[in-house]
Amino acid sequence: MEQRDSDATSPPGLGIGMVGYAFMGAAHSQGWRNVGRVFDLPLRPVLAAIAGRDAAAVRSAARRHGWAAAETDWRALIARDDVHLVDICTPGDSHAEIAIAALEAGKHVLCEKPLANSVAEAEAMATAAEAARARGQVAMVGFNYRRVPALSYARRLIAEGRLGTLRHVRVTYLQDWLVDPDFPLTWRLEREHAGSGALGDLGAHIVDLAQYLAGEPIVGVSAQTETFVRERPRLTAAAAGLAVPSGQAATGAPRGPVTVDDAAVFTARLASGALATFEASRMASGRKNQLRLEINGERGSLAFDLERLNELCFHDHHEPAVTAGFRRILVTEAEHPYLEAWWPPGHALGYEHTFTHQARDLVAAIGTGSEPSPSFADGLLVQRVLAAVEESARKNAVYTPVQDVPAEVR
Amino acid sequence: MEQRDSDATSPPGLGIGMVGYAFMGAAHSQGWRNVGRVFDLPLRPVLAAIAGRDAAAVRSAARRHGWAAAETDWRALIARDDVHLVDICTPGDSHAEIAIAALEAGKHVLCEKPLANSVAEAEAMATAAEAARARGQVAMVGFNYRRVPALSYARRLIAEGRLGTLRHVRVTYLQDWLVDPDFPLTWRLEREHAGSGALGDLGAHIVDLAQYLAGEPIVGVSAQTETFVRERPRLTAAAAGLAVPSGQAATGAPRGPVTVDDAAVFTARLASGALATFEASRMASGRKNQLRLEINGERGSLAFDLERLNELCFHDHHEPAVTAGFRRILVTEAEHPYLEAWWPPGHALGYEHTFTHQARDLVAAIGTGSEPSPSFADGLLVQRVLAAVEESARKNAVYTPVQDVPAEVR
Amino acid sequence: MEQRDSDATSPPGLGIGMVGYAFMGAAHSQGWRNVGRVFDLPLRPVLAAIAGRDAAAVRSAARRHGWAAAETDWRALIARDDVHLVDICTPGDSHAEIAIAALEAGKHVLCEKPLANSVAEAEAMATAAEAARARGQVAMVGFNYRRVPALSYARRLIAEGRLGTLRHVRVTYLQDWLVDPDFPLTWRLEREHAGSGALGDLGAHIVDLAQYLAGEPIVGVSAQTETFVRERPRLTAAAAGLAVPSGQAATGAPRGPVTVDDAAVFTARLASGALATFEASRMASGRKNQLRLEINGERGSLAFDLERLNELCFHDHHEPAVTAGFRRILVTEAEHPYLEAWWPPGHALGYEHTFTHQARDLVAAIGTGSEPSPSFADGLLVQRVLAAVEESARKNAVYTPVQDVPAEVR
Amino acid sequence: MEQRDSDATSPPGLGIGMVGYAFMGAAHSQGWRNVGRVFDLPLRPVLAAIAGRDAAAVRSAARRHGWAAAETDWRALIARDDVHLVDICTPGDSHAEIAIAALEAGKHVLCEKPLANSVAEAEAMATAAEAARARGQVAMVGFNYRRVPALSYARRLIAEGRLGTLRHVRVTYLQDWLVDPDFPLTWRLEREHAGSGALGDLGAHIVDLAQYLAGEPIVGVSAQTETFVRERPRLTAAAAGLAVPSGQAATGAPRGPVTVDDAAVFTARLASGALATFEASRMASGRKNQLRLEINGERGSLAFDLERLNELCFHDHHEPAVTAGFRRILVTEAEHPYLEAWWPPGHALGYEHTFTHQARDLVAAIGTGSEPSPSFADGLLVQRVLAAVEESARKNAVYTPVQDVPAEVR
Repeated sequence: MEQRDSDATSPPGLGIGMVGYAFMGAAHSQGWRNVGRVFDLPLRPVLAAIAGRDAAAVRSAARRHGWAAAETDWRALIARDDVHLVDICTPGDSHAEIAIAALEAGKHVLCEKPLANSVAEAEAMATAAEAARARGQVAMVGFNYRRVPALSYARRLIAEGRLGTLRHVRVTYLQDWLVDPDFPLTWRLEREHAGSGALGDLGAHIVDLAQYLAGEPIVGVSAQTETFVRERPRLTAAAAGLAVPSGQAATGAPRGPVTVDDAAVFTARLASGALATFEASRMASGRKNQLRLEINGERGSLAFDLERLNELCFHDHHEPAVTAGFRRILVTEAEHPYLEAWWPPGHALGYEHTFTHQARDLVAAIGTGSEPSPSFADGLLVQRVLAAVEESARKNAVYTPVQDVPAEVR
Repeated sequence: MEQRDSDATSPPGLGIGMVGYAFMGAAHSQGWRNVGRVFDLPLRPVLAAIAGRDAAAVRSAARRHGWAAAETDWRALIARDDVHLVDICTPGDSHAEIAIAALEAGKHVLCEKPLANSVAEAEAMATAAEAARARGQVAMVGFNYRRVPALSYARRLIAEGRLGTLRHVRVTYLQDWLVDPDFPLTWRLEREHAGSGALGDLGAHIVDLAQYLAGEPIVGVSAQTETFVRERPRLTAAAAGLAVPSGQAATGAPRGPVTVDDAAVFTARLASGALATFEASRMASGRKNQLRLEINGERGSLAFDLERLNELCFHDHHEPAVTAGFRRILVTEAEHPYLEAWWPPGHALGYEHTFTHQARDLVAAIGTGSEPSPSFADGLLVQRVLAAVEESARKNAVYTPVQDVPAEVR
Repeated sequence: MEQRDSDATSPPGLGIGMVGYAFMGAAHSQGWRNVGRVFDLPLRPVLAAIAGRDAAAVRSAARRHGWAAAETDWRALIARDDVHLVDICTPGDSHAEIAIAALEAGKHVLCEKPLANSVAEAEAMATAAEAARARGQVAMVGFNYRRVPALSYARRLIAEGRLGTLRHVRVTYLQDWLVDPDFPLTWRLEREHAGSGALGDLGAHIVDLAQYLAGEPIVGVSAQTETFVRERPRLTAAAAGLAVPSGQAATGAPRGPVTVDDAAVFTARLASGALATFEASRMASGRKNQLRLEINGERGSLAFDLERLNELCFHDHHEPAVTAGFRRILVTEAEHPYLEAWWPPGHALGYEHTFTHQARDLVAAIGTGSEPSPSFADGLLVQRVLAAVEESARKNAVYTPVQDVPAEVR
Repeated sequence: MEQRDSDATSPPGLGIGMVGYAFMGAAHSQGWRNVGRVFDLPLRPVLAAIAGRDAAAVRSAARRHGWAAAETDWRALIARDDVHLVDICTPGDSHAEIAIAALEAGKHVLCEKPLANSVAEAEAMATAAEAARARGQVAMVGFNYRRVPALSYARRLIAEGRLGTLRHVRVTYLQDWLVDPDFPLTWRLEREHAGSGALGDLGAHIVDLAQYLAGEPIVGVSAQTETFVRERPRLTAAAAGLAVPSGQAATGAPRGPVTVDDAAVFTARLASGALATFEASRMASGRKNQLRLEINGERGSLAFDLERLNELCFHDHHEPAVTAGFRRILVTEAEHPYLEAWWPPGHALGYEHTFTHQARDLVAAIGTGSEPSPSFADGLLVQRVLAAVEESARKNAVYTPVQDVPAEVR
């Protein structure tokens, strides 16, 4: 006999409205769809509606990703009663306007990184989030790599003091999709839409990660940036709609100027005095999406590579020299962050699950009304570091303090 | 204005009915839930119903994993009109009965590996599948590792002749959850339920993989098996319901006999004369779920490690010695199997996605009415190898031919 | 003013006489030349003389490698008063005759592995060594991989009980110089000279290593061997003199039969009941000289790869799961075996230094009159395992006990 | 009958005189002793004499390392007729005086890196070398890592254009022997003797390597340096004689100021516009002597790790994406630099052999009278980069051009 689940006390729904449906939209959709199937949540995410400018495309995306409704105006999406949380997956130039409108409309907000294209926008957003927080609303920025279990666990080890006083942080985030000089001029290569290039896209991730893991802010930077290929073929109107063009060289097309950086390198100081090096590039031949980091402290070290995201290498400096070594921890044990809800030890997670974990943490924060991590204030902090990087690069790499740094980073 | 998708021509539904809801049930649920959101399919999987003996537990699992209904009798599940495909995630001793009943009821079937606990059962199942196939039904066995993109791609490279005549296959599948002698006596350690131990659970995977990748069958084996810990604490009634006990030592509990192997090692011959070595163990301290394989051929070699499942190492023997080497291919390019539907290059997939891919391939086979891969006949083939392994182990490791091997393996 | 070292009490000299001067001769020469410059020794090795059949070639080799004299008859070399130790670097078919003659002449002996081409020869050699030992002579067999510091340290960890009861040993030793079917028919491919193929050359190493590391003997084996390429081009007379032909295909040349194995695979039991797998091959495309091993015990595991010979991976099963993992120990610390005499931590040693260490241990054994490790008895033990492997391979892989195994292996 | 080598035409001798006999002295001794046994050389190195201030210690070192004579005054060593080449292994503060004196005395010179402690000294040395070169003398600086075969081969690949236009160079050289705040105040931590800290010791290596591999100079830098532990225990008189104190904490001892950097990080520009990052540190817990580098170009990339010095990873950007990947080349083939003289493929070399190769190249340059690589001019070039680093660090990291850069680097 069929079992009817009449006594089920399903948690109340949380209507999600997503703006944008390209790469990030697809990834967020997976997160929203699955999070309640894996984790115990105080609220049940409902894929209520998505918004996009092209009516046919947005309908198609809604069908594909399982959203109940589609809107062609993000203001209409925000206005919907069945949308309680607005998830912003658009390019950076629209983040501030949408996020502030959503917050003013009483919605919770998840905003993709970088928080904004400028410090001024980010400040306005953080102010709006602060005001909304008093009304019980939650605003989170989508630094999803904080949710790689190995990195969440790295944070825990550092917070527990297993590395002692930090001495060095080195992080590189390398891609190679711009190596071909005929790769076309997408919105990501135009300052007006993207704000910056590798710096804002990749650098934002590693600045946030470094501060999150260290638990302390970057206080100053010395930077160089470069645009190696200064003109690229313009996209046809058709191709321009694609968020991630497939990279086919459009050799014959007229060329336009690349107005963002291809790569950015900088050294930095953390509040504790630790020395850090950062590199973000889209010109690193053979590196597809490689975020590598190492942190050395007085008591130990950690190393991580996003290409092997289920692994964390840990060196304990107190181990006798004869048996010491970087141990490769497979971060798939029930005791590791997020892992209790997943598979038995040794079964790998993937990139996608960072979005599932992000959704979990955001819903948990909404459920308890607590400050999310990372908050818009954390996103602003990253923006200030990026601004200092750009300022230093303009000023011949001179050491440039970051403005208004807090005492610690959550 | 909200966009109504009135012109959508959604594909027809395919009602899934799943029997069992433990580890494999959770993994299959993820696959069924997501497959249509990622891949273009001829049919739209619908999570119709799951079955399990414990009414409360099955209702809870249905809620958790998003199944519309719950049944306490698998026969009732099979009988449902809204179930078109029966997905069998139970221990091996029930596979034959359920699968044959489902096939006779006109349903498609997906059956977890190993296909059965004996050759006789597997033969009956293959016969039933053969008969059902004439009626347009599809029966697949769940060797999900065929769907790791790196391994699907390995198969393609070998099929294209990039390795030439094969000389060596070596595969190990190592776990360590039985190292602790106080790990309790679960159903997986009892012959009547599990058929065999590491051999049937892990060995079945690597036998299938080896044959699939090589494209040719194992024709004979020489084997040794061992049960290192011969008695273990009996489970309490409560704990017995858990498919994967968390490994807490139940030191004080009365002990019962372990009736399956802890480990199996065997050498083998492939039809082409290639020499192979296999090892399956649950006593390999520090190895959580490590499936490693290497295949050497006259023209090249491949190496793979499930702990780094997005990577495939390939050596091309025709490369000049001075630049030759195992290249580490990050199997995340759009041209790689399954990857076009996923993320940009360099974004890792996980264990779970093998089930999404399995679902895709099964639905595609149903849509076109084509023979699935792996079919029940392929599952029977694995069963015959396992039987030869057990026979050889009983007969002092003497080389034991596998019965009724085909000319090739699809 | 120049400092005259008049008060130096240099240790007494130990005259070395080496038979054979190909690859192994060159490697041993490096060892003898350098050992006294790195280690404190009770005796000072003197490169007295080398012997070889071709007068011009042996003179040239003496010049090249720094030997004071050259002989064309190994009997003359043994007869020299300035030769106290005979170092045998010839093919296996001459080991017994030379070694026994040297021992009977009152010389210490170092004999390259495998000790002999048959158990009978090895028994005669071990008997001769036993008799000579009563006269204060030392006879060692050249299993140089025992002297890789990482493996010496592995032995120490196992002897200290850090792995507990052993469950699994798996070792592969892979080369690829026979992949090309036109690689010529050298003496290494002829049974009368080489005894066996990959088995005696590579298999001898890994059998010795497994027993040495485990500290216990292999008690039985089940084996398959194969000669994939059964005929190869005969060498010209000129080329036949080269121990290691450079692999140029001699396509047009007449072909002769390969009378040894290209590859051998076997499973085995250790005295403690541990299950082991072995593979030796010269047909593993892309693997140049890759000896990999892993040992799993109840308390921990070790893993090693000769391509990264300064590293040992160690898993401690008592470590909490959350921080457990294989740690990569860089075996370059002063506390590691042999390392105190070398460079600061982190400075890699190479293949050659195994011969320096071998020389050190042999001279130390001579100095103290203690039993060397590995002794001829240890070499005989390996020979018996190889014989059991060949017998099992002839008998359809049936499990074949090793004859006269000792209680432990030093 | 003994073979007398009467017709041997041994190459003429080249008398070596070495100043200093600590770590570098031991390493150079190995190189000089073995180079003629491995490589064909135009001259036969003879270990004529070493010099050191402590009579007993220098005699002991001469005995240990096999030098024929010992001197307590380096001027006496230079004056010896049997010394044709002066090998300077002392701290940097004495390099200029000794090297210039030796060159003026008509001797060839090998000088350990860094060439000097200041640009002025290095300029004087380069001038002296230039003048001596006109007299047929050769002066080389000991950047031995150029002689790691994998790095020599990397240089060849880049010179052949396999990487195309370079975009990125990133190099780190990490040690951890200063992590313990009680590690004592050795000469390496005093500016007057060492010139600088990690910068001059480790940074000099990676600056030279980067320029050598790229084939082009660094034109400007932006740097930060740090001394994390500013006071350390003074050494006792006895311990002060040791070049490499074993690191025992001398907790109770009075403390003195550390006057050099513990770590230096800098970004840089190469002449072609490529962006580079450098880090040198003695505070990187768990890293013993880890020099890692990666170079990305428009056509390919290279990666290297000194801990695995027999391997070079190469990515060919023209390979189809589906089979592209970093290939791990085992640099042990006869076609690789230096390897023809060594062992068969797959047999690892070690750190020591860089000195053998250095000796080979130096003797070859002397034999042909050609400009050595690296010359004193190359050493001066490195010194100028280090000076720019220190100047930038003093000036708030502002981008600081390197003085007098050449068009290319040999």
